[in-house]
Amino acid sequence: MDYAATTPMDEQVLEAMKPYLSKRYGNASSIHSYGLEARKALEDSRHTVADLIKAKDEEIIFTGSGTESNNLAIKGVAFANRSKGRHIVTSDIEHDAVLEPCKWLREQGFEVTVLPVDRYGLVHVAAVENAIRKDTILVSIMHANNEIGTIEPIAEIGKICHDHGIYLHSDAVQTFGKVPIDAEKMNVDLLSTSAHKLYGPKGVGCLYVRRGVKIEPLIHGGGHEFGLRSSTENVAGIVGFAKAAELRKREMSAELERLTGLRDMLIRDVLKIGDVFLNGHPRQRLPNNANFWFKSIEGESLVLHLDMNGVAASTGSACSSKSLEPSHVLMGIGLKHEQAHGSLRLTLGKHNSIADVDYVVGIVAEAVDKLRAMSPLE
Amino acid sequence: MDYAATTPMDEQVLEAMKPYLSKRYGNASSIHSYGLEARKALEDSRHTVADLIKAKDEEIIFTGSGTESNNLAIKGVAFANRSKGRHIVTSDIEHDAVLEPCKWLREQGFEVTVLPVDRYGLVHVAAVENAIRKDTILVSIMHANNEIGTIEPIAEIGKICHDHGIYLHSDAVQTFGKVPIDAEKMNVDLLSTSAHKLYGPKGVGCLYVRRGVKIEPLIHGGGHEFGLRSSTENVAGIVGFAKAAELRKREMSAELERLTGLRDMLIRDVLKIGDVFLNGHPRQRLPNNANFWFKSIEGESLVLHLDMNGVAASTGSACSSKSLEPSHVLMGIGLKHEQAHGSLRLTLGKHNSIADVDYVVGIVAEAVDKLRAMSPLE
Repeated sequence: MDYAATTPMDEQVLEAMKPYLSKRYGNASSIHSYGLEARKALEDSRHTVADLIKAKDEEIIFTGSGTESNNLAIKGVAFANRSKGRHIVTSDIEHDAVLEPCKWLREQGFEVTVLPVDRYGLVHVAAVENAIRKDTILVSIMHANNEIGTIEPIAEIGKICHDHGIYLHSDAVQTFGKVPIDAEKMNVDLLSTSAHKLYGPKGVGCLYVRRGVKIEPLIHGGGHEFGLRSSTENVAGIVGFAKAAELRKREMSAELERLTGLRDMLIRDVLKIGDVFLNGHPRQRLPNNANFWFKSIEGESLVLHLDMNGVAASTGSACSSKSLEPSHVLMGIGLKHEQAHGSLRLTLGKHNSIADVDYVVGIVAEAVDKLRAMSPLE
Repeated sequence: MDYAATTPMDEQVLEAMKPYLSKRYGNASSIHSYGLEARKALEDSRHTVADLIKAKDEEIIFTGSGTESNNLAIKGVAFANRSKGRHIVTSDIEHDAVLEPCKWLREQGFEVTVLPVDRYGLVHVAAVENAIRKDTILVSIMHANNEIGTIEPIAEIGKICHDHGIYLHSDAVQTFGKVPIDAEKMNVDLLSTSAHKLYGPKGVGCLYVRRGVKIEPLIHGGGHEFGLRSSTENVAGIVGFAKAAELRKREMSAELERLTGLRDMLIRDVLKIGDVFLNGHPRQRLPNNANFWFKSIEGESLVLHLDMNGVAASTGSACSSKSLEPSHVLMGIGLKHEQAHGSLRLTLGKHNSIADVDYVVGIVAEAVDKLRAMSPLE
């Protein structure tokens, strides 16, 4: 139940990749048959991925990760548009892959407004509008939060941005392939994602860049990916990404309904344990995300207890779980230190069943009892 | 015979990767068992790769490609040391993955001295020393040229750099795993490479960063790779890279001798065709590289003719073969436009035999005859 951290590759994804991990190993820039074969696989994959979000093929830039996509979007737009202005707007519950590039841009002479969110993790559309200045060039607000699952009102924010002639970037790492995305209707100019969150391989991501957006590359070189991301293309990885996208498209609607049902059951049953509270928005949240804070509990102990019982879970951000600082997202929605430290994230995926939910709820209840009994916080 | 463009993955590499493409899919940042398993694979791989160039584990930063490694090295050092100076020295036969980041840095207020090379493609050590100024912070000279195979006197250049307190970066994409490298003895501070050139997977590279080197990340986020390259680690790719490095270490010495023999035979026999000249240094060159220019021949026609006969080859740089501009490397060693356009690169690898060399020489001779007979250039 840690599908938000990463997912196992779908067997069909691995099957699709295999030829490109062996016989079809050409460099897509070569002009001979090996190269042309690789080039065709690359362009077919681009079409499949574009199709999932109703984008044009040439609007999809393959990268090495979701983090790289976020860096490319934010720094690329900042450097390409700095003659117009040097002000960026974001929120305080963004992923580090957005906040850290923004922090770095500050050192390069940019100004960044970091908007607060409400107790549910929602960015208010009016707050975005109020933050926009004459020199604002970019707004970056995530589609859904990776920790608490709250889905942001991106289309409305995008409308505001476009009314002011400003680009909107959205980190869609947690939604791409899980909820329907129509890049055009969503009013985004740039959208980041990563394959390994949707049963695809690690080491591949993409950035949607709406046609006409002024952006500079982050990785310069031979001019691959329409000049926006140089590097010999990871053809096998990209083919895997495309197969994962194709499968998500086919299964999305049924899976969305099934996971929402499991999630609601999970939330209902965990809340019965007592002295436990749901983090994030009660309804406007990812179909697979449940996040709680438990009174008098250390989240890490809970995760380790679950692990001993064969359950993968996380506390705070999966990406920052090595740090001792409480999650900036949980602090952002107003939790106190001890509340944030008592958090547990359970994220569902295609292999989870009703029986899994029952089992995990039982283990969590047992662990909470045990840990509270010996807690010095009690 | 286009092993410099890319290589097929070794079967053992794919076997090593498979568990990490299926069951062992954890996110190396997770604190549960899946995460720890991934973390261990990652750190074991780091050790293996470090071992190949006698580096310390923590001096290896995994990236998404050789191009990314070059960008990280050059931009990372430039931004981290700009208070010390803003001058960089490189050569005019570097890969685009070095020249383009340098060009971009110029737009950011840096100055770049691009050194010429001699007719063999050698950078003169004295020229490097002469180019060094009080505000020089970095010299970037490739270990061996990807087109003409010339091996540069890196250790000597490194000594000069260190005498002046300047960092040396070297693009070792074409030498890593092919010729012995001892990072310490080579006097480099930063060294780039890519796994797919040494029978490993595409989408993975690394940058050696000597301990103590002041460098900034290119991709900011969750703080992975010692804070120098954020992104969920591509564990399968990294495991494949390590297996490839391990195999190269074991086979390097015998393969170096075998390929050198094949290369010399190939050069000798192609030169017999007549009105054909060797590009690059006659001896100080990659063990697997042969590069020629043919009088009255269009290189692309030659490559296509070879392709029709089952031989993969390249003309100009593999990465720039889509462009109509003649290779900047061939122009850099003093070739005229029509000479550069008549170039052919043959690069050998582990699957090539004496019979292959004989076959390819025959096909080249036949193609040259045919093309010259109908050439308007004749």
